[in-house]
Amino acid sequence: MTSTLADRYPTRTADTPQILERPDPAVWGDRPGPLADPSLDAYARTGFLALEHLFDRAEVQTCLDELDRLGAELRAAEDERVAFEGDTRQVRSIFEVHLLSKEIRGILVQPKVVDMARQILGSEVYVHQCRINCKPGFDGGPFHWHSDFETWHAEDGMPRPRAFSISVALTENYPFNGALMIMPGTHAKFITCCGTTPPGYFHDSLRRHEPGAQVGMPDRASLTRMSDEHGIECFAGKPGSATVFDSNCLHGSNGNVTPFPRSNLFVVFNSVENTLVEPFAAPERRPPFIAARDFTPLAELAKR
Amino acid sequence: MTSTLADRYPTRTADTPQILERPDPAVWGDRPGPLADPSLDAYARTGFLALEHLFDRAEVQTCLDELDRLGAELRAAEDERVAFEGDTRQVRSIFEVHLLSKEIRGILVQPKVVDMARQILGSEVYVHQCRINCKPGFDGGPFHWHSDFETWHAEDGMPRPRAFSISVALTENYPFNGALMIMPGTHAKFITCCGTTPPGYFHDSLRRHEPGAQVGMPDRASLTRMSDEHGIECFAGKPGSATVFDSNCLHGSNGNVTPFPRSNLFVVFNSVENTLVEPFAAPERRPPFIAARDFTPLAELAKR
Repeated sequence: MTSTLADRYPTRTADTPQILERPDPAVWGDRPGPLADPSLDAYARTGFLALEHLFDRAEVQTCLDELDRLGAELRAAEDERVAFEGDTRQVRSIFEVHLLSKEIRGILVQPKVVDMARQILGSEVYVHQCRINCKPGFDGGPFHWHSDFETWHAEDGMPRPRAFSISVALTENYPFNGALMIMPGTHAKFITCCGTTPPGYFHDSLRRHEPGAQVGMPDRASLTRMSDEHGIECFAGKPGSATVFDSNCLHGSNGNVTPFPRSNLFVVFNSVENTLVEPFAAPERRPPFIAARDFTPLAELAKR
Repeated sequence: MTSTLADRYPTRTADTPQILERPDPAVWGDRPGPLADPSLDAYARTGFLALEHLFDRAEVQTCLDELDRLGAELRAAEDERVAFEGDTRQVRSIFEVHLLSKEIRGILVQPKVVDMARQILGSEVYVHQCRINCKPGFDGGPFHWHSDFETWHAEDGMPRPRAFSISVALTENYPFNGALMIMPGTHAKFITCCGTTPPGYFHDSLRRHEPGAQVGMPDRASLTRMSDEHGIECFAGKPGSATVFDSNCLHGSNGNVTPFPRSNLFVVFNSVENTLVEPFAAPERRPPFIAARDFTPLAELAKR
């Protein structure tokens, strides 16, 4: 069943890609919060903010400890919320860490995080997705260029791009060990993708990330045009630094041949006024550990 | 037939890797030349030098024009001196461009290049290898960490590391489109590699560059130790900028998912007092377009 709401972000519906202007803002309303006006203006213009010291050393250590603990527990239990690198048993992602770990939930409900989310999204917020990613040394795979919102809209039924992500470095992120790259300003465009979402697609799309052929990946001509017009920014940072970026930013990351692994906490905040409906371009919903269907505001969730 | 000279750089001879101290210098003698003493000292210590403007715009354009011309000609002729990216017909490398192109030869014999080579190597020099590399956008493959000298010694019979490379950017090199990375100071160590060189190995090793399993690649434990002790430097630069690096530096590069291709001219200078003998650890010589057996000094070659 696909959504019947009027769709301002059509995708996976035609054979020819289009580059549309985004009809929605990136910053919703003018709620007060921890971000100063120039930072908020920069976010509205570029679609991202780099924060040098969002988490302190103890908070980073808590996340790393939880990564070790949860990785071992979930792997032993063959829990579907752990994903592995390629065909190995090396942990690549752990999902739903905000539900699995009271400690991580405790970090996220701090005003420096949750009030920033309310400020950007102009409402109460909930966690759409929360995972820890590890890009191992020597052969960490790439993530090809994409808009998260395109996927969340098509496969999860997120109506509008009233959502953003925080990527927090848990190990040092160098420009050369698979760091996040963004094309600044591309959050204001919506590139429609071609192809049709096959059933059970999320199983594949989490593990493999190959260019061109995949559904939900923008075509190369559009990406070339976007990179020529917008350039590319690459985010390096010490543990505890963070990149806040709009759900519709074109982003990706290279593989990592260096011996330095790269771990990040990745949290997606969505507005409670933008909760999921049925998928706009997929035959079924993705599982709730990838796309939450519990829309309880984060502040209330923390009391559980 | 393998070389019977006393070997101070044993490799591919045992199952356990070793990290040896290099018995030879990086800068040979004190010949005058275009490099100032502090630059030469830095090169001796770190194994590399970054030169911001080695080539001007016209010289870069000449190289790019020759790349287009030679790529088309050699591909049409199915010449073995052109290598392709993966299984595609996209040109990845063209070899022996100093012989194929009078224009490129003309660039290399300029004092700013050839006198620098004489200054570093303390003798007349010849070209051991000269190629143009293209790392295409979107799916350029990685080069895993290795020492060129280990290969040239084992497979080409180069007696000592009295050689260096220049990598000249022909398109802009960003930290994120597959730029050269070096572990500074590792030129002073020699990491012995395990395994035995199979016959015809060069065919594979030029096309595929996978970690771990391959002969001539240092083991992961040694690479981790080297990166912890020496760190990693990544070289970005405008067209015309160059990195000069010792033949024994540990270096590599990540794949490239960005739409920006990356082309470089890569020239290896060897001392005429260090010409090739028989391979030290391979059953046969590699072809001369990969490892020249014509030791004519560059200055004389240019008169041809």
